[in-house]
Amino acid sequence: MNRVATAHGPLIAEVRLTPVLVGDPPLLNVHGVHQPYTPRLIVEIVTDGGITGVGETYGDTAYLELARPYAAGLVGHAVADLNGLFTLMNMVGVDASQVDHAVDVGGLRGARTADKLRLSVVSAFEVACLDALGKVRGEPVHSLLGGKVRDSVAYSAYLFYRWAEHPGGAGEKDTWGAALDPAGIVAQARRLVREHGFGSFKLKGGVFPPEQEIAAIRALAAAFPGRPLRLDPNGGWSAATSLRVAAELRGVLEYLEDPAPGTAAMAEVSRGTDVPLATNMCVTAFPEIREAFLTDAVQVVLSDHHYWGGLRNTRELAAICRVFGVGLSMHSNTHLGISLAAMNHVAATVPNLDHACDSHYPWQSEDVITARHVFRDGQLTVCDAPGLGVELDRGALARLHRRWLEDDGTLRDRDDARAMRRAPEHAGWTTPALPRW
Amino acid sequence: MNRVATAHGPLIAEVRLTPVLVGDPPLLNVHGVHQPYTPRLIVEIVTDGGITGVGETYGDTAYLELARPYAAGLVGHAVADLNGLFTLMNMVGVDASQVDHAVDVGGLRGARTADKLRLSVVSAFEVACLDALGKVRGEPVHSLLGGKVRDSVAYSAYLFYRWAEHPGGAGEKDTWGAALDPAGIVAQARRLVREHGFGSFKLKGGVFPPEQEIAAIRALAAAFPGRPLRLDPNGGWSAATSLRVAAELRGVLEYLEDPAPGTAAMAEVSRGTDVPLATNMCVTAFPEIREAFLTDAVQVVLSDHHYWGGLRNTRELAAICRVFGVGLSMHSNTHLGISLAAMNHVAATVPNLDHACDSHYPWQSEDVITARHVFRDGQLTVCDAPGLGVELDRGALARLHRRWLEDDGTLRDRDDARAMRRAPEHAGWTTPALPRW
Repeated sequence: MNRVATAHGPLIAEVRLTPVLVGDPPLLNVHGVHQPYTPRLIVEIVTDGGITGVGETYGDTAYLELARPYAAGLVGHAVADLNGLFTLMNMVGVDASQVDHAVDVGGLRGARTADKLRLSVVSAFEVACLDALGKVRGEPVHSLLGGKVRDSVAYSAYLFYRWAEHPGGAGEKDTWGAALDPAGIVAQARRLVREHGFGSFKLKGGVFPPEQEIAAIRALAAAFPGRPLRLDPNGGWSAATSLRVAAELRGVLEYLEDPAPGTAAMAEVSRGTDVPLATNMCVTAFPEIREAFLTDAVQVVLSDHHYWGGLRNTRELAAICRVFGVGLSMHSNTHLGISLAAMNHVAATVPNLDHACDSHYPWQSEDVITARHVFRDGQLTVCDAPGLGVELDRGALARLHRRWLEDDGTLRDRDDARAMRRAPEHAGWTTPALPRW
Repeated sequence: MNRVATAHGPLIAEVRLTPVLVGDPPLLNVHGVHQPYTPRLIVEIVTDGGITGVGETYGDTAYLELARPYAAGLVGHAVADLNGLFTLMNMVGVDASQVDHAVDVGGLRGARTADKLRLSVVSAFEVACLDALGKVRGEPVHSLLGGKVRDSVAYSAYLFYRWAEHPGGAGEKDTWGAALDPAGIVAQARRLVREHGFGSFKLKGGVFPPEQEIAAIRALAAAFPGRPLRLDPNGGWSAATSLRVAAELRGVLEYLEDPAPGTAAMAEVSRGTDVPLATNMCVTAFPEIREAFLTDAVQVVLSDHHYWGGLRNTRELAAICRVFGVGLSMHSNTHLGISLAAMNHVAATVPNLDHACDSHYPWQSEDVITARHVFRDGQLTVCDAPGLGVELDRGALARLHRRWLEDDGTLRDRDDARAMRRAPEHAGWTTPALPRW
């Protein structure tokens, strides 16, 4: 493919990259616990007409290091040349050490390839370009994607085992308290329903032995009869354990998410149960689709638009899922309101959005937009304002960036195992080898 | 999926449908011979701001009957709501008799399902909306598809066995003369190269016993050493015959196109040869992809954007081909300059355009645009003018429409077998059962 300059419509005159650290509660998973603050990268592109578009992605050092030369190369690029974003990104070298680098949390995001790193960076620029284009044209982002097919998007309540506070009282405080058993999870679910109206539930598992998590799911089923329930141990179980859990929770779960690590293990589980399997770990990039679909390893793909390279790629993934009869929903990692807006726009345009989307958003008390998104009856209205329909809160952005600047480097890469070790009772914690159970 | 009204940007104020009959030479294929005139449907949408966008698709009665209620329903629809075009089309009923109707030529276009009929109609409206949107925004269609990744698109010379003129001297005259043997095909190829600069060749086969067509390919290989060559008998051969031809032409052919009818037979051929197989007959719609890709029945999909539902769906097909390592190129049936412009725009945006596209265009001496497309060195430059970059020639459109109006109905549905019977020596011709050899 040649590099072809397209120069229709506005050009990118300036790109601003702002790494931030965002408050995150002590949420537990198979790798450890969330840090008190998690890195995100805010991307702004400014057109030659002075219009600003915003995007957001993972903010760990490797992403930032890729984003810098890429941003410099984009100046002068046509905002509408979205295909060219990928051509240009392929010219940015990825240091092998970034790919092999043992970032524990990398496992939660699936395999870490050079292409996936690149796409996770491009996604923020693609969203920023769509935001700017929409503002220039007076059209919402969903319209640039061909138009919404629904007026609101459903989300599920994202339940976490958690501590009341971070080790040593670090980070921001909240009023949720600990949730470490079925009663705690049900109480958390009740409050999320009360505050946001969610109609379905996902429990992040892989924290306790499977029996305890099965008990939590049963407690949720008793407390919320008939509501869709999901359990996600992030590949923490062997295929045999996964099959045992599936057998116990058959008819109770809407789907089981990433019970076992890797496509081969997922395919083994799939052969042994009719409980649908979902993933955002073994199908996280286009090259992973073929094997997973050919072996019927997954029945639902949870798309994270950051992994996949943005909103238009997410629509392509949706088209592939339609053809292969694989369900589609969307994944969320700790993120801010820019990414939630982007997710909501693309979700609004995908005909085959088969399940309520996941969102960490209720756990983030901080944001960089002026008006936080509000879930009503567990749904987010699709915004018809130009672009994404969000406005950057420059004061908040500066404050969260200052936190990033002042950090001694220990929080700039998310590392849930390191965060776990800060708790004296887990001082010897290391990322467990998967499967753990 | 709900019907959601989107009202951003211009609205469709008026839709005009103009069926036309277009001069077509006596080109031969496995079903018979092209009629002296072939039906096409020209679609114009006019925005509330008075901007006109144009599209084109198959013009047979079944398409026209679907287009009429659909066009009426589109008035008031947002031009930018391209996803809504599909939602709305699903509301147009397809008469079962249209689907089961034995249109002989339907076989050349692959299976005729209600969905495919609908998509073939939507495609013209999608292109017309993109053309109008581009004109409103001052952007070429390729830019609306995310931007071109190449500045020109390569086409192959489309060689046909043909008669010098239609039975009884009907239709338009030309100076090509007959081509019924290897020497005639090579002469035709030389003139196409001289006039258009093509660098690769496709022979429409299935007309004569395979040995004669193998001899024509060998004659082309001798006349144009090293140039890519393809042979397409439109499913005219059994798997055994296909394998015999593949063995004889291994190393000579770039690919063999639709040698045997249907995915199962194609898969059987594929298992027995390493000559790549291409298709525009067994993979012509999204529901046909799964079986064909799982059984490795085809290595190249030749997309006809009309079948697939337009330019954005063609890009989704391209994404699916990338994921499954299947090659992509584009198919052409008798069409005018509007469809060639549309094809060129989408081809310009697809990174994985692996082969020179097919085009019947050099065989059409008539057109409905003011400035015919010109191939240089077998390539068409990607147009950067707003929209498709073509202008409707209203005089020509009226003339070809008058021909359609004055037709007694015998040419309004393409039927290559009926056209064959007009030749006294083929008075008893019927569409051959496939495979023929």
